[in-house]
Amino acid sequence: MTFKPGRKGLPTHRRAFLGGGLAMGMAALGGDATAAAPASPPLAARMPDSMKTLGGADLAYGQPSVHEQAVQRLAHPSTAQTAGFAIWRTPLQHQRGIITPSGLHFSVHHNGLPDIAPDRHALMVHGLVKRPLRFDLERLLRYPMVSRIHFLECAGNSATNALSPTAMNQTLGDLAGEVSCAEWTGVPLSYLLNEAGLKEGATWVVAEGADGGSHARSLPLSALLKDGFVALYQNGERLRPSQGYPMRLFMPGWEGNVNVKWLHRLEVTDQPAYTKDESGLYAQVLDNGQIERFAFHMDVKSVITHPSGLQTLPEARGFYEIGGLAWSGHGRIAKVEVSVDGGKSWALAQLHAPVLDRAFTRFTVPWQWDGKKATLMSRATDEQGRSQPARSEWKRKYAMQSFHHYNAVQAWRVGTDGRVENVYA
Amino acid sequence: MTFKPGRKGLPTHRRAFLGGGLAMGMAALGGDATAAAPASPPLAARMPDSMKTLGGADLAYGQPSVHEQAVQRLAHPSTAQTAGFAIWRTPLQHQRGIITPSGLHFSVHHNGLPDIAPDRHALMVHGLVKRPLRFDLERLLRYPMVSRIHFLECAGNSATNALSPTAMNQTLGDLAGEVSCAEWTGVPLSYLLNEAGLKEGATWVVAEGADGGSHARSLPLSALLKDGFVALYQNGERLRPSQGYPMRLFMPGWEGNVNVKWLHRLEVTDQPAYTKDESGLYAQVLDNGQIERFAFHMDVKSVITHPSGLQTLPEARGFYEIGGLAWSGHGRIAKVEVSVDGGKSWALAQLHAPVLDRAFTRFTVPWQWDGKKATLMSRATDEQGRSQPARSEWKRKYAMQSFHHYNAVQAWRVGTDGRVENVYA
Repeated sequence: MTFKPGRKGLPTHRRAFLGGGLAMGMAALGGDATAAAPASPPLAARMPDSMKTLGGADLAYGQPSVHEQAVQRLAHPSTAQTAGFAIWRTPLQHQRGIITPSGLHFSVHHNGLPDIAPDRHALMVHGLVKRPLRFDLERLLRYPMVSRIHFLECAGNSATNALSPTAMNQTLGDLAGEVSCAEWTGVPLSYLLNEAGLKEGATWVVAEGADGGSHARSLPLSALLKDGFVALYQNGERLRPSQGYPMRLFMPGWEGNVNVKWLHRLEVTDQPAYTKDESGLYAQVLDNGQIERFAFHMDVKSVITHPSGLQTLPEARGFYEIGGLAWSGHGRIAKVEVSVDGGKSWALAQLHAPVLDRAFTRFTVPWQWDGKKATLMSRATDEQGRSQPARSEWKRKYAMQSFHHYNAVQAWRVGTDGRVENVYA
Repeated sequence: MTFKPGRKGLPTHRRAFLGGGLAMGMAALGGDATAAAPASPPLAARMPDSMKTLGGADLAYGQPSVHEQAVQRLAHPSTAQTAGFAIWRTPLQHQRGIITPSGLHFSVHHNGLPDIAPDRHALMVHGLVKRPLRFDLERLLRYPMVSRIHFLECAGNSATNALSPTAMNQTLGDLAGEVSCAEWTGVPLSYLLNEAGLKEGATWVVAEGADGGSHARSLPLSALLKDGFVALYQNGERLRPSQGYPMRLFMPGWEGNVNVKWLHRLEVTDQPAYTKDESGLYAQVLDNGQIERFAFHMDVKSVITHPSGLQTLPEARGFYEIGGLAWSGHGRIAKVEVSVDGGKSWALAQLHAPVLDRAFTRFTVPWQWDGKKATLMSRATDEQGRSQPARSEWKRKYAMQSFHHYNAVQAWRVGTDGRVENVYA
């Protein structure tokens, strides 16, 4: 959805934020009364063509409207799609609600998409276990499963804002679209690990994917036993190839790359493996020169989805709903504050149910825009009291070249022409 | 997912239902220990082909795996797709979790799929209003929206079980797949109707779609003001054509056909319009000869999704998770009971969070099958205390040819060969 020039509204309120119910805001919006002025409008004259013709046939697997083809995942222009890193971002500015459609879920591949026939794939559990086990898909499907609605975020999400010395004028999807939220269903890892039987010293698990990049990460055993599961379904259907078909590791709230896709083995060990991925790419340099390894949790974060970067407000003043998404790898969102004056004052946003553990939470706040320059910001706080830092604060913590786990407040500048752009504020 | 012959499990428990934790059930399942007997299995020999080759490229709008093409919506064989009724059913037996993917959401069309360009579509609000209004899409997108996870069910769902004198041996999707659950996002109707201003006598609203079938239904104004919204998004993206693109009426918990698709006008009136759809098709004959009109709410209902019709249990005994979906048009699900002996005894199933208002609720119960004939049933009760009737009880209430609002208990017979079939029990 892009805001485009439309009909004129009637501004009725001077306060920037509207309190006391939405009806006030509604009065300011208004439908097109002039076009339908007669008490009984001539309906026949308005009968659309679609009512006069035979409709078309549907497909066995439904598709979006041909009129919505602009809503696609965004391929990162600098990455090849079949080798090394490939990045696809969710166009978050088009999403409403908390569920990201599977076709638009972000994805990062380390070596393109492997084509895996499910009947030839299996998961091995070995290492410090009493009974090494091999689970083919048919066997896994018989286990009890859990379903959870959780966000998933790439550790490198929002890298542009972390690294670029000046704010890039891009859409929200381009800037921060390596995060999505879906319903994941799978078999708790505790079932599989307990069945294999843990030997003394078992404290870590090395998870490896069956992709050409041999993507592998070490995870603490205790966390896997508590929270981890082998995901087989996403949003009610079997995982898609870009999400690790036929099975992936899922660790709620942890950075995307430890949720190993195309999972084919779990090796129980007494220490981390220091794989190439965790020793190099996903270790981050702090400002004091130390290396931050095994920083698993994604921190509390929020973004305003509408209005957002490269959108244009259709009228130079009037009612707008500011809305966005908040999430935290540590639990539920407790509150979101929104500012329209660059952080000088903040209003409490409405959180929309359901507010779920480690999931997208939708927030909104009604806004009466006076037509002057405005800087919109959102700041989320989770149930543990963690809050988003300002960009300057985040930058002070990490070395100049670091860009993982960026969760600073996102600011959008609205110009007097209604154009919205990314700014550092 | 179809249960197919697999490896042998080791039955360890005699009780039909497993209490006291899932770990007991797990012991009965077992991975393939023999295939991985060495303490350190030779991993290199097991390296799958996908690790030795370059992966493929992805699509901007993601798609399911080519290996999952059997999971499609089921077109009702007796209905044309472009004229009259077309019915597409959700293959519920393949769904896990509570969200139905949009590509598999059930759909009933009254005249095929209209192709509607969003910039030429508008919603008119007229009739007993002070100020007739016309809302184009761009205008509607500026209004505050709500998001709700709700089931949607066709009034005629499960017609086969209602009408057929003998139980048809079909899949769950064929038998009861005109129900799905999604996250819907849109503008509350109270905003639009209050803005138009209601005149004295306003008590009903006639909603009409812009399809060639001119599908129209009358709804009580009070209910629309309380609960109704104009849905613009489904599962995070804009509505798909089969769900009414670019806008539809949504009334949580009410029979599918009142959720008018391709919505183009709402006429406020002082009485129902007795449209062809509500006077004919969606009125139902009771056993006493009276006609039941305006029966909006879908009642409490549940189905076991696994194991279900036409599946085959892979082993003649052993551990299985019985799982299914429950929902009610009157509120939340309070409990689901499961029987494996045709209704003689019942066990309380586990309800999986989130248990949402008028949404699918997932339930499971662990089952140790002794290999003998078994009849599986589920019976849901909602928070208002409404419970599913037996089929005989339901049939006594309605005339022989009636089939709407069928919510009787579904029974699956498991044969000694593991085959599952639909039975009346």
